[in-house]
Amino acid sequence: MADIILASQSPRRKTLLEWANIPFEIVVSDSDESFPETMAKQEVPVFIASNKAKAVLEKLEQLQEPHQQKDALKDFCIIAADTIVLLDQLILGKPLDRQDAVNSLSLLSGRSHQVITGVVVLYQGKEYAFSETTQVDFHSLTLAQIEYYVDHYKPFDKAGGYAIQEWIGVIGIKGIQGDFYNVMGLPVSLLVQKLKQLGID
Amino acid sequence: MADIILASQSPRRKTLLEWANIPFEIVVSDSDESFPETMAKQEVPVFIASNKAKAVLEKLEQLQEPHQQKDALKDFCIIAADTIVLLDQLILGKPLDRQDAVNSLSLLSGRSHQVITGVVVLYQGKEYAFSETTQVDFHSLTLAQIEYYVDHYKPFDKAGGYAIQEWIGVIGIKGIQGDFYNVMGLPVSLLVQKLKQLGID
Repeated sequence: MADIILASQSPRRKTLLEWANIPFEIVVSDSDESFPETMAKQEVPVFIASNKAKAVLEKLEQLQEPHQQKDALKDFCIIAADTIVLLDQLILGKPLDRQDAVNSLSLLSGRSHQVITGVVVLYQGKEYAFSETTQVDFHSLTLAQIEYYVDHYKPFDKAGGYAIQEWIGVIGIKGIQGDFYNVMGLPVSLLVQKLKQLGID
Repeated sequence: MADIILASQSPRRKTLLEWANIPFEIVVSDSDESFPETMAKQEVPVFIASNKAKAVLEKLEQLQEPHQQKDALKDFCIIAADTIVLLDQLILGKPLDRQDAVNSLSLLSGRSHQVITGVVVLYQGKEYAFSETTQVDFHSLTLAQIEYYVDHYKPFDKAGGYAIQEWIGVIGIKGIQGDFYNVMGLPVSLLVQKLKQLGID
């Protein structure tokens, strides 16, 4: 069986792969998270995930002994993911500070947005990519609720400034359409099916 | 502020109220969980929740000093809930044994079903009831997956024989339409809104 490498330091993605009973190791490497301005927003998560996966592949290649390189790498399966929050055509990234988080949640309040996670799997020299979209419908939130959440949960590492599995998601989200775990950061059931198709499970 | 009583011994409901930061105590009392055969299936959860709430109210009334009774009880807010899994017009209850759990998941595999939670709030002598429906879409599951889940997670206390937050939900559910936490057993965000309407928060 191939060694599965999760190219992410997100604790949620780690937790989700563990819940799926998939054995894996974490290897991360810095990569460029920018994207071409003209790119369709829906394609951004796969584009960034692809760069994350390639950066980890390079790192692993550098760690290999030169003579082992080609064969040894065939046994790695690298999984990378990137999640964006899309409100109409506006990407809401990780908040820069408290005010940015409050602004982000104020924009999401009382409306529907999309959470898109792009996943890239590098295996045996090939790249497999897919993305999954979940619609999330927020109740109207009061400013007091938003500030309470931001001050107590400090969602600065979360796209859009919230986590669906935290207080704000429990009391503030009316419903979703699609995969809940995709909103947490990884469309696990689709990933499991993809790994099965590739003969990795 | 009223004392909130959760009339449920479900650990999931307890967890969800905690996540919502609602302070509460648990009081349970046995109640009849049967329902009229002719009742529309969608109405069953509220019917059963109402009986759970009333049983706890009776218990609390018996615990009161006679002269305190009327006034003291006005300060309690009793919350009861019941969740059913509905496949077409068939209610899938808690599995009786291993085979029943395997049969239940085999029926759900590759199809959509509804999870309906009925909630009843008893407060100041009045009964407030609502229910929430979430559609859950399962991937096709193999018998090996179903048996692995039943043998390792023993879902005998769960309507329909599964929990969305366990392995089978992570790898086996394609998506939902509606409130995720409703599938876990309590439509928390609607409950929070109802409590706010009643002036309890």
